[in-house]
Amino acid sequence: MRLRDVGEFGFIDRIAAMVGEDSRVVLGIGDDAALLDLGGPELVAVTTDAMLEHQHFDLTWLEPGEVGWRAASGALSDLAAMGATPVSVFCTVGLPPFWLVEAAEALLRGVAEAARAVDATLTGGDVIAAENALVDIMALGLVPDGQQLTRGGARPGNLLAVTGSLGAPAAAVQALSEWGHDALDHDPRRAPIRARFAHPEPRVAAGRAIALSGLATAAIDISDGIIQDAGHIAERSGVRCIIEAPRIPVAEGVRAIAEELGTDPLPWILAGGEEFELLLAIEPNSAEALASLEEVAAIGLTVIGRVEAGEGVVAVDDSGQVIDLPTGGWDHFWRHPRS
Amino acid sequence: MRLRDVGEFGFIDRIAAMVGEDSRVVLGIGDDAALLDLGGPELVAVTTDAMLEHQHFDLTWLEPGEVGWRAASGALSDLAAMGATPVSVFCTVGLPPFWLVEAAEALLRGVAEAARAVDATLTGGDVIAAENALVDIMALGLVPDGQQLTRGGARPGNLLAVTGSLGAPAAAVQALSEWGHDALDHDPRRAPIRARFAHPEPRVAAGRAIALSGLATAAIDISDGIIQDAGHIAERSGVRCIIEAPRIPVAEGVRAIAEELGTDPLPWILAGGEEFELLLAIEPNSAEALASLEEVAAIGLTVIGRVEAGEGVVAVDDSGQVIDLPTGGWDHFWRHPRS
Repeated sequence: MRLRDVGEFGFIDRIAAMVGEDSRVVLGIGDDAALLDLGGPELVAVTTDAMLEHQHFDLTWLEPGEVGWRAASGALSDLAAMGATPVSVFCTVGLPPFWLVEAAEALLRGVAEAARAVDATLTGGDVIAAENALVDIMALGLVPDGQQLTRGGARPGNLLAVTGSLGAPAAAVQALSEWGHDALDHDPRRAPIRARFAHPEPRVAAGRAIALSGLATAAIDISDGIIQDAGHIAERSGVRCIIEAPRIPVAEGVRAIAEELGTDPLPWILAGGEEFELLLAIEPNSAEALASLEEVAAIGLTVIGRVEAGEGVVAVDDSGQVIDLPTGGWDHFWRHPRS
Repeated sequence: MRLRDVGEFGFIDRIAAMVGEDSRVVLGIGDDAALLDLGGPELVAVTTDAMLEHQHFDLTWLEPGEVGWRAASGALSDLAAMGATPVSVFCTVGLPPFWLVEAAEALLRGVAEAARAVDATLTGGDVIAAENALVDIMALGLVPDGQQLTRGGARPGNLLAVTGSLGAPAAAVQALSEWGHDALDHDPRRAPIRARFAHPEPRVAAGRAIALSGLATAAIDISDGIIQDAGHIAERSGVRCIIEAPRIPVAEGVRAIAEELGTDPLPWILAGGEEFELLLAIEPNSAEALASLEEVAAIGLTVIGRVEAGEGVVAVDDSGQVIDLPTGGWDHFWRHPRS
């Protein structure tokens, strides 16, 4: 049996089964970040996120500094989903020896700037030579014990809510694939799409505010597609998630690109990864209070579904019919879209 | 100008220059691990160490479990060099989708076992698909503030001392290269070489004991060759390191392999990487007390040189003549041996 047969998440389940218990590990494999109790005033949240050239990014589509920014933002988004305040970013880079020093510096500067944008620091890392560029980010943050957001607390009767709007990263990838590497550079109507794709903003301030409010029962960041990420909440919470697809806010410019491409943007919105928005489970009577938190109001919060008893996740249309999706989100050992 | 022109350490210097100040970062880029003050009773030490197939390891030479063990041990050795007690290991693995699940599990089990061997836990990580296997380890540990070992405290008049013995990893690589992948499997005289190569033991207990004793002025683990690693102490401490080559203990079986290959083992001992022994600077009157610490006595400690005013590092022979070395140790953007 090979990795492609069990898939990324099947393999992670097997790894989790071989890990021993440790009283200092408050939360181990299976959430956005691990939580450690190192005896300090807050829990230490740690997450890692790796990106490979040609698989997660393409240097004909992104500047090196944007690659660094996006990679760091992916890990910082995991901390946001725990409600943790980032402290340090560590970056392992693999780079071809023929790379211009200026390009390599720009990539690392992107990492350092993404850290600085959330009051954290690029604190260390490792540098190796590699045939294709790779960026592996480890981000470390702090969250007060008892305030952490996890995937595991959603309950039947909860609502599902999402910050911001979805669809831009997948629309960008589709446009760049179909129209070429400069597809998003000249038309000002496409500028918001490129900005969201190249310069995503992890929801650190909102995540922290939500955690401290105590008003969310579960949280995850949307890095593998909202359906798949809702599936993680469903699995860890032992519940069923219903996504009401028409309620999901669609990012500016997404519908126009879909129209020009003659395609339906729904798969982008439901299965597109690297959105770095937060998906929350909340008590129905908390929705208004959460949406009015200053850091949340700044990016918007929309109820887009509900939690029921059961298991798994479905997306439904206006009439409540289940939407049949060709893709189930990102799995590293399959290909996107998964067949 | 390209990365191969400035080299790994020239590039790291450039990265260090772009990193901002942060009062929580007690020690940043430029030592074996970063040290963070997160408000707890001890400082948090964090290090990352990445290994790539065909560059740092070859699966015709090592079992997958050994690859995992060695990768984790490399990062744990960095913690040992700070005197830190490991708590958690995080592992990013990139694996080809056609890999057998059993091989992938064995690799991760090697990581988990290396962590468990020093009372730490594999706590998390990331899994991605990659053409060639890669293992990036982040290790996190604790060290009481004021007890940490760094590269920066060596003073003129200090002695240099090394734990254990050197040469086995380079001898193994040479034997495997010249004689083929089973060169170390059948002859029992070569078994110690294979064991040291495939199953290195990071000097965690000794590092901790040395740190708590307060008897070392500087420390580093030998991961890039003793000459190059002594050079890091020289640079960070603002001193000159003299390595008296004939005093370096040579690992069991190294001379026999050198003899069979008709070569001089000295370059292996002076420039061979991934030894994972500790190189210390110590006050002359501390040598005996350090060597008699239980955890140090178990692996041995040998004075192999001295610290002078000045800069740089040289190796000298019995008569005090400087040894002209063809290699300067490992640099990821050059090739080993560096020309």
